[in-house]
Amino acid sequence: MTLPARPLPKYLVQRYKGWKATDYADSAAWYQRLATEGQRPRAMVISCCDSRVHVTSIFGAEMGEFFIHRNIANLVPPYSPDGNLHGTSAAIEYAVGALQVSNLLVLGHSQCGGVQGCLDMCEGNAPELESDSSFVGRWMDLLRGGYEKVKGQGDRQSQLRALERQAVLTSLTNLMTFPQVADRVAEGTLALHGLWHDIGNGALEWYDPEAGAFHGV
Amino acid sequence: MTLPARPLPKYLVQRYKGWKATDYADSAAWYQRLATEGQRPRAMVISCCDSRVHVTSIFGAEMGEFFIHRNIANLVPPYSPDGNLHGTSAAIEYAVGALQVSNLLVLGHSQCGGVQGCLDMCEGNAPELESDSSFVGRWMDLLRGGYEKVKGQGDRQSQLRALERQAVLTSLTNLMTFPQVADRVAEGTLALHGLWHDIGNGALEWYDPEAGAFHGV
Amino acid sequence: MTLPARPLPKYLVQRYKGWKATDYADSAAWYQRLATEGQRPRAMVISCCDSRVHVTSIFGAEMGEFFIHRNIANLVPPYSPDGNLHGTSAAIEYAVGALQVSNLLVLGHSQCGGVQGCLDMCEGNAPELESDSSFVGRWMDLLRGGYEKVKGQGDRQSQLRALERQAVLTSLTNLMTFPQVADRVAEGTLALHGLWHDIGNGALEWYDPEAGAFHGV
Amino acid sequence: MTLPARPLPKYLVQRYKGWKATDYADSAAWYQRLATEGQRPRAMVISCCDSRVHVTSIFGAEMGEFFIHRNIANLVPPYSPDGNLHGTSAAIEYAVGALQVSNLLVLGHSQCGGVQGCLDMCEGNAPELESDSSFVGRWMDLLRGGYEKVKGQGDRQSQLRALERQAVLTSLTNLMTFPQVADRVAEGTLALHGLWHDIGNGALEWYDPEAGAFHGV
Repeated sequence: MTLPARPLPKYLVQRYKGWKATDYADSAAWYQRLATEGQRPRAMVISCCDSRVHVTSIFGAEMGEFFIHRNIANLVPPYSPDGNLHGTSAAIEYAVGALQVSNLLVLGHSQCGGVQGCLDMCEGNAPELESDSSFVGRWMDLLRGGYEKVKGQGDRQSQLRALERQAVLTSLTNLMTFPQVADRVAEGTLALHGLWHDIGNGALEWYDPEAGAFHGV
Repeated sequence: MTLPARPLPKYLVQRYKGWKATDYADSAAWYQRLATEGQRPRAMVISCCDSRVHVTSIFGAEMGEFFIHRNIANLVPPYSPDGNLHGTSAAIEYAVGALQVSNLLVLGHSQCGGVQGCLDMCEGNAPELESDSSFVGRWMDLLRGGYEKVKGQGDRQSQLRALERQAVLTSLTNLMTFPQVADRVAEGTLALHGLWHDIGNGALEWYDPEAGAFHGV
Repeated sequence: MTLPARPLPKYLVQRYKGWKATDYADSAAWYQRLATEGQRPRAMVISCCDSRVHVTSIFGAEMGEFFIHRNIANLVPPYSPDGNLHGTSAAIEYAVGALQVSNLLVLGHSQCGGVQGCLDMCEGNAPELESDSSFVGRWMDLLRGGYEKVKGQGDRQSQLRALERQAVLTSLTNLMTFPQVADRVAEGTLALHGLWHDIGNGALEWYDPEAGAFHGV
Repeated sequence: MTLPARPLPKYLVQRYKGWKATDYADSAAWYQRLATEGQRPRAMVISCCDSRVHVTSIFGAEMGEFFIHRNIANLVPPYSPDGNLHGTSAAIEYAVGALQVSNLLVLGHSQCGGVQGCLDMCEGNAPELESDSSFVGRWMDLLRGGYEKVKGQGDRQSQLRALERQAVLTSLTNLMTFPQVADRVAEGTLALHGLWHDIGNGALEWYDPEAGAFHGV
């Protein structure tokens, strides 16, 4: 079968050429070195696929700084070495093991479509997400425990904001089930960070385990 | 258990505040609108977690333009609606179904660590990747078929570059096993694009199915 | 009063710098000459403000080729030299008189919001457009005569497509009320062209006065 | 009367067909969606008709991004809801009200013919622009206040460059007389930007209200 691949739309080609002639040209020596010597990122970031969350912009990151995994609702499944496919776990294994990152940030955000789907599903209002064939539904099962903690608390918007933060806490909790993560955290060579970003007003909050709450940074 | 989360390192707080006072401030109206009205990205991008590949920089993308999934080696598994966790498939389902993106870009790159591991594993030089407990190994199994097409062709560097491009073709091939993707491609409402980026010299190539080869854009 | 102007959003600055380093750099000699010697466009185009209609893309136009006026629904008012403000007429006077363009294209298009508003207003369904303070309403009054020709013909979509074409014909008709235009058309130094573009399927039609209908180019 | 419309010149048909077979084909899915769902441009741009200023090129804009009004000298008249024709005000009303754009850019440029005419007229050297029947003259009356600020300052070229920038400031000032604009600026949902572009050397400047001056971006 011939793959039905198409040429890149012209406006993207133009923008790429603009990047090549400016950003790339200004940093060519560094990029060549990154290519030759390999990456050495300080941090891994687990963020959502949402088009409105640019972790590289928010943190002014340059190429080489962050190893970034993005999935629906920035979720980490529990450790489960069963020989099956686990894309998120593979990214964590590579960052924490091979790359030995020092920081691991989980970045949640407001208006998360995956979290909205999860709330609808848990409330029984999204039967289409409950079938085996719904990849989004099965993925969002990871957040059912989080739903139990926020259900009935305030109006829909409040519950959504709370559930988005539960997604971050779920991921942090599941990260600690990875022996490699737990060991490196215990030995003090890896720090975990839980963050939540408000798309509309630009706020950024971090999870403070002592207070058991999120605070503005 | 108290989660061992830590405050965000100061240099990241500082950069965030810089972004908030400048980029965010200059675009606040748009970001508020994106929050209120929801995202409407034109394209989904499937890219690698590698810290040296910033798709938003390369294509001058502003918040709201690209729905981005990043995993090890930008791989898409075959369609497999078995009720298990499939993070990549969930992202595709959401982008192609709920968001109705018009373009889907798979972006591979040079010096890909996942691809290097795959080559080592396929050549019998990475026993640690072969155990059930190796998430990276099991994930890179997706590229074993690609290895069969490039093995024995040229030196190690040539094989790596060829295998990186095979990762892109594997993903395009597997994308077409998703009924939703195949249907939308057939009806002309979704275009697929295969790309490969050279980190060191900044080049960008696209897969031309008529030639059966990658060309510079 | 201090003007509340803001810095340009960063992504636009980046894109501009990309343009400067590529397109501009490749054409600098020509742009400098255009600056020194002045423009000498062959054609004027009157097009809609709609973000989905790029006349420069559709016609592969380079800087210097088209003098372009864009307003709501690509409308030309009748000649009315009353000493008041007439932005569209000023653009026509400058193009046809000072610049002596040889071709004048009026480019209409599908899904035109201004034309939709006009249809609603003429059918009595848009009272907000009927007040003196509605600039859009008063502007779309120019198309009330066009509405009379299409009303009652087919369903709403058919009427909209017909009214969009009437907007082009209205503009051509009103252009001929400008003595300068009529004189130059009569002496054969200026040609008028009526066009309609379908945003969705990319079609382009031209008005054939002998057939009294629009045809694909 | 039969309208004296002519077929499109062959070279434009050829270019259009080239665009249809390439750019359109690569982006057909997106264009169909833009047609079905409607536009959602982030920004409105008010620019000059001059053939040497392609705002879409300078900012690498793809269809759907910018709602663009182009008139002589990128001028905005003061708010005047008197029931007469106001094409520029209609475009602003539609963009700021119906489309709810988040950014409004006024883009002036060097070697502007309208501004040159204004300088000549204000200096008494263009009697033909002073009659009621001169649409260009009456339109450029909008910039007479700007002339008062620059007259006598430096040689003719300096005065022209200064008057071109005054055209941008005049438009920003008049924009703020539109209640809808002023309200949305006050509530932080609309940002205004004043820009000036040098056609010959490709420079781009923005107006910095704190400095009261234009700076390179």
